[in-house]
Amino acid sequence: MALPISPLATPLPALPPIAGVRLAAAEAGIRYKGRTDAVLAELAPGTTVAGVFTSSKCPGAPVDWCRAALPAGRARAVVVNAGNANVFTGRAGAQAARATAVAAAGLVGCPPRQVFLASTGVIGEVLPHERLTAALPALHAGLSETGWEAAARGIMTTDTFPKAATRVARIGDAEVRITGIAKGSGMIAPDMATMLCFVFTDAKIPAPALQKLLARGTEASFNRTTVDSDTSTSDTVLLFATGQARHARVAPEGGRGLADFGRQLNDLLLDLALQVIRDGEGAQKLVRIDVAGAVSAKSAKRIAMSIANSPLVKTAIAGEDANWGRIVMAVGKAGEPADRDRIGVAIGGTWMARDGGVVPGYDEAPVVAHMKGREVEIAVDLGLGRGQATVWTCDLTHGYIDINGSYRS
Amino acid sequence: MALPISPLATPLPALPPIAGVRLAAAEAGIRYKGRTDAVLAELAPGTTVAGVFTSSKCPGAPVDWCRAALPAGRARAVVVNAGNANVFTGRAGAQAARATAVAAAGLVGCPPRQVFLASTGVIGEVLPHERLTAALPALHAGLSETGWEAAARGIMTTDTFPKAATRVARIGDAEVRITGIAKGSGMIAPDMATMLCFVFTDAKIPAPALQKLLARGTEASFNRTTVDSDTSTSDTVLLFATGQARHARVAPEGGRGLADFGRQLNDLLLDLALQVIRDGEGAQKLVRIDVAGAVSAKSAKRIAMSIANSPLVKTAIAGEDANWGRIVMAVGKAGEPADRDRIGVAIGGTWMARDGGVVPGYDEAPVVAHMKGREVEIAVDLGLGRGQATVWTCDLTHGYIDINGSYRS
Repeated sequence: MALPISPLATPLPALPPIAGVRLAAAEAGIRYKGRTDAVLAELAPGTTVAGVFTSSKCPGAPVDWCRAALPAGRARAVVVNAGNANVFTGRAGAQAARATAVAAAGLVGCPPRQVFLASTGVIGEVLPHERLTAALPALHAGLSETGWEAAARGIMTTDTFPKAATRVARIGDAEVRITGIAKGSGMIAPDMATMLCFVFTDAKIPAPALQKLLARGTEASFNRTTVDSDTSTSDTVLLFATGQARHARVAPEGGRGLADFGRQLNDLLLDLALQVIRDGEGAQKLVRIDVAGAVSAKSAKRIAMSIANSPLVKTAIAGEDANWGRIVMAVGKAGEPADRDRIGVAIGGTWMARDGGVVPGYDEAPVVAHMKGREVEIAVDLGLGRGQATVWTCDLTHGYIDINGSYRS
Repeated sequence: MALPISPLATPLPALPPIAGVRLAAAEAGIRYKGRTDAVLAELAPGTTVAGVFTSSKCPGAPVDWCRAALPAGRARAVVVNAGNANVFTGRAGAQAARATAVAAAGLVGCPPRQVFLASTGVIGEVLPHERLTAALPALHAGLSETGWEAAARGIMTTDTFPKAATRVARIGDAEVRITGIAKGSGMIAPDMATMLCFVFTDAKIPAPALQKLLARGTEASFNRTTVDSDTSTSDTVLLFATGQARHARVAPEGGRGLADFGRQLNDLLLDLALQVIRDGEGAQKLVRIDVAGAVSAKSAKRIAMSIANSPLVKTAIAGEDANWGRIVMAVGKAGEPADRDRIGVAIGGTWMARDGGVVPGYDEAPVVAHMKGREVEIAVDLGLGRGQATVWTCDLTHGYIDINGSYRS
């Protein structure tokens, strides 16, 4: 089943080289035929690394591997495969991860613990790692500074378009570049909606500072998006700093000199996160949900996510129905403080409900017009405090059922 | 849009009279045309009442009314309408509720606070209560001991079949009868999947004991079912005891004499709850999920609900795909203690995964056959403790999108 490209797709931006990063993609034949499914990125000696991973209690073997490798803060390579997630594969899965890292380390010339891994695809089947390791020498020979698009395509599973973003940031007087690629979240041979993201910069930033930046940036981007509320066992975001750029020294704990870098990184991560939502399974509309007036930012985020994950809200959006009663329902079920008689709801900037009731004689015409567009904006004001949050999701359509209700085979 | 009757529908059982209960249904024309949409039940003097309501922070006006009336523990009437939920209607909604109760109280001859109310249907539109109060005199004149099926039909919104159940229980040497009706959870003019349930018995049980029994019974039945994770603003279960049966006196706090009554009540509530799930929007399969080996019963229930609410699990069941990887994903995202390497998963009694990996060479044939049936059983063993829980849901199909993605109008 070939899926049509998402109507919300964005074009791949130009991706200039990043000093210290070379990439390649190849056909390892792990599951797919006639397309690339294995990616190798080689990183210059001295590259630092930060990572955030799925909160699932059933993480995949590559996530285990990365978690164990992360504390040393050094990376020389990343190996990614699509088609098999190497999740719930027990001891064989851990062995497959180790064998892959050992093989890549041999080619790159580093300890296996400086090789980072990610796998995405079917769950519960042992990764045929011999196919992956067999592909590694050719991958290594084909490494190139211009391999970005090939890498972005090689990590796709049922994504309908490749996802990448790039930014320039200032550290002191110097310019550094940040480029990231991501995959998610369509499915053909349906399994987990895995989300993978790899970000590279030529900045020279110690691992602890890098980790702090990444944790903050992920919380403000990927952690505020949802397609279907189903958290993957393989979610991984890795950030590598090759240290090839020349700029003022950055202290291990970071500091003010990283302000612009942090802003650009956050902007890039949000860009990638929204590309993933734009490719949400069956998505026809990108939905932004702003919640204000909650008792805290945490409470606002929970309420926003309750709206974003509500099947009734998402099907109403798919039907272009400004059914704000369902938004109220989703606020009510969130388990967070809310006073029904103070709640306001707006769609596309038009307030339809205020202070616990419909706004008398509000003009539905602009709301109806807004709902027909590709991007839908919902705002909720709880009228309780100063807590606010924004999250993003997509609509729930027949496409989602088609993609996920078909057989794996 | 007329929906076909659910393939999971059960026939309406014979519903003998209950001493002290008379019912009637009528066409009040609140929203629907050509069908009954208003129900009145009159209860004998001395009837005690128990109730449980939605946990939504945005409950409807009738829920507010019932909550305020409940502490007195006495009921003489119930008025239910379909087509308008009287939710998020502010002061006008509260006034509509009061006007309805006052009108019914005048006919029955009781204080308004002994009239209980429930409304189900569209949200955010003021209930045209004049239509309801105008219908009350005819409803009152038409009250009958045999009005059960009429009442079960009159409270339907987009249900595809009427829902009722009846049991006989012993209190001491005497037999008492318990009969309940329920509605939920299809939608034509889609709004909230409201769930309403009214249970009647001729037993003479003080309100505190009745409340205890109902709270326990609801927790083991309705609170263990889900169609789409969207908690309604109007969920209401009311239990009325008319006290017309002659049996040993029951103390206010209940006690051992109620053991059989409690069992029969729980059995009846579960019967009704499963009828609601059998009429879940677009449902083609009834799914039972048993979780064992969790650290506590509460943890087991949360994990079971995480599976039951996962769109990926539910679409896989719709596709008759024994995709146990998605079940593992849903366990992992539940946020409850789980050790990936001890988890086992069975479908239809066949264990497909054990101790964190696939069971080598397991026979998929009986699993495939089981998935094709109308009732699917999923079991998960966490291997951690003695906590267990069972919950029920239905699959997620194109029918759900059809029903909920169409316009309200």
